[in-house]
Amino acid sequence: MVKRSLSGIKSTGIPHLGNYLGMIKPAIELQESYESFYFVAEYHALTTERDPAAMRRSTQMITAYFLAFGLDPARAAFFRQSAIPEVTELAWILSCVTHMGLLERAHAWKAAKDRGESNETNHGLFGYPVLMAADILIYDSDVVPVGQDQIQHLEMTRDMATKLNLAFPGADLKLPQALVQKEVAVVPGIDGQKMSKSYDNIIEPLAPPKALRKQCMKIITDSKSLEDPKDPTNDATFALYKLFATPDELAEMEANYRGGNYGYGHAKEALFQKMNEYFTPYRENYERLMADPDTLEDVLEAGSKRVRPVVEEVMERVRSATGLGRP
Amino acid sequence: MVKRSLSGIKSTGIPHLGNYLGMIKPAIELQESYESFYFVAEYHALTTERDPAAMRRSTQMITAYFLAFGLDPARAAFFRQSAIPEVTELAWILSCVTHMGLLERAHAWKAAKDRGESNETNHGLFGYPVLMAADILIYDSDVVPVGQDQIQHLEMTRDMATKLNLAFPGADLKLPQALVQKEVAVVPGIDGQKMSKSYDNIIEPLAPPKALRKQCMKIITDSKSLEDPKDPTNDATFALYKLFATPDELAEMEANYRGGNYGYGHAKEALFQKMNEYFTPYRENYERLMADPDTLEDVLEAGSKRVRPVVEEVMERVRSATGLGRP
Repeated sequence: MVKRSLSGIKSTGIPHLGNYLGMIKPAIELQESYESFYFVAEYHALTTERDPAAMRRSTQMITAYFLAFGLDPARAAFFRQSAIPEVTELAWILSCVTHMGLLERAHAWKAAKDRGESNETNHGLFGYPVLMAADILIYDSDVVPVGQDQIQHLEMTRDMATKLNLAFPGADLKLPQALVQKEVAVVPGIDGQKMSKSYDNIIEPLAPPKALRKQCMKIITDSKSLEDPKDPTNDATFALYKLFATPDELAEMEANYRGGNYGYGHAKEALFQKMNEYFTPYRENYERLMADPDTLEDVLEAGSKRVRPVVEEVMERVRSATGLGRP
Repeated sequence: MVKRSLSGIKSTGIPHLGNYLGMIKPAIELQESYESFYFVAEYHALTTERDPAAMRRSTQMITAYFLAFGLDPARAAFFRQSAIPEVTELAWILSCVTHMGLLERAHAWKAAKDRGESNETNHGLFGYPVLMAADILIYDSDVVPVGQDQIQHLEMTRDMATKLNLAFPGADLKLPQALVQKEVAVVPGIDGQKMSKSYDNIIEPLAPPKALRKQCMKIITDSKSLEDPKDPTNDATFALYKLFATPDELAEMEANYRGGNYGYGHAKEALFQKMNEYFTPYRENYERLMADPDTLEDVLEAGSKRVRPVVEEVMERVRSATGLGRP
């Protein structure tokens, strides 16, 4: 039997190159080997998002990104988290068997405490791992792709499922397995730090060519002049080029760096050309999709219809086991 | 316009005399002056209840109690909390604007902390006030009857509603008013302490006469003999009799106490006769209802259908204001 994979994508802002390489690309590849469910995590986004228009725009952009990069809605289900509001019901039920101590040990919460923000942190952030567990468990998911930093969340999910299954025989929540991703090369931002929205150093892979070029040109370099030989090992442009170039192309750029008379402007232009070539077909898909929000919304709706029978079966088990609702 | 009142009743165990006088009776009286909604709080019960059969039995018993004592399903809506699972969705949304500090200050949580149980307390207990707020706010409730010890919950509810309305214009949650109940006389249990399930000292008002009589006979007294004069001011039988007797009947029993040659057995028998007379018609209703669970379930279902349009309107406002779902 084909196993089921589950991926959640938070709907805050536009994806950047680091998101694409680290999450979107490997997530889409799952549709080859699994029955794949993907949801846009609006409820989780609400812990920080306060702009409803931005939330909806972001949801559509993320959907368009996945479709543009090859997610096939005929094979996989792509949907809004809020189309399955039952996840919040399951989250409440899980809360009733989840010790506070478990949540107190969550990395994100401990970090908030260490920053002295615990009192003004909202309860949604504290309850984040419970909703995440509900998201996973409500689809009888077999596997969940996770990075190293999310392994704890999957362990917590298994812990909550075990607690519920023990407290309420018949709930029979399926214990998911972590599909730990191979360590992906860190994608540097235009300032050389790890690419991250919070550092304001991102490259948007599907931006129009002019904007993409501008982002490339803004990459921060050292102050060597055109003539000077340059060190490729500690340079953001080179590190980004490496992600797209063939070995031969990379060797050529390395020689240019070390040889001198090759300016950072040349390297940035080469990077832009390379990325632009790689992303143009996807960008065309993306722009076509974004011009047609009805189709995006229809894909999301079809996705939620597809997962609904699974949700009803799991929730029927849980409600029956816990004594909720008409006998 | 008629205002709306909301009452929630936790579905754990059978109601006792203290529940009847302190909560059920005044709650039913609300149907005279308000559009009254009543729900059986299964989700809240799940913070402690682990027996699904007991949960369902308790839900039916509570429903039968209210109907037996005069709740009129043609005027008021009586329903299961879990028939409106949207309350858990609203609770999540409220969590995203609710500071942890607010929940840390809740009396029940502080008590758990003081007992050193905070780590092993479940997250449902910690989140209890948020779900309670969602229960109130999802029905655009105007008033909520509360005892002194629940005023804090209503203040927290108003606080959360204000936060959501400010963060998301258009949510327009209605701020409910507390309907603070007149101080009801404390109902003593058969051991003289306040009647409470946890003290195992309860009287079940609708128990069959034999059982009711047995409960009366178990009331603890001092060891004065039949002949001795007795002090009515510090006696559980007398205090219970006072709740049902006319002033003349009470004066007569007081004279008997003080005169001597009147045993506690006589007083208990008088108490039993009085309560039995009072409760017999209600007990007959109750037994008829409990023999017909389908009718009980139909009443609950009709109640949830009646409140559903209110829920849909409120949730449409909240989802639209927060950016959840299809635009």
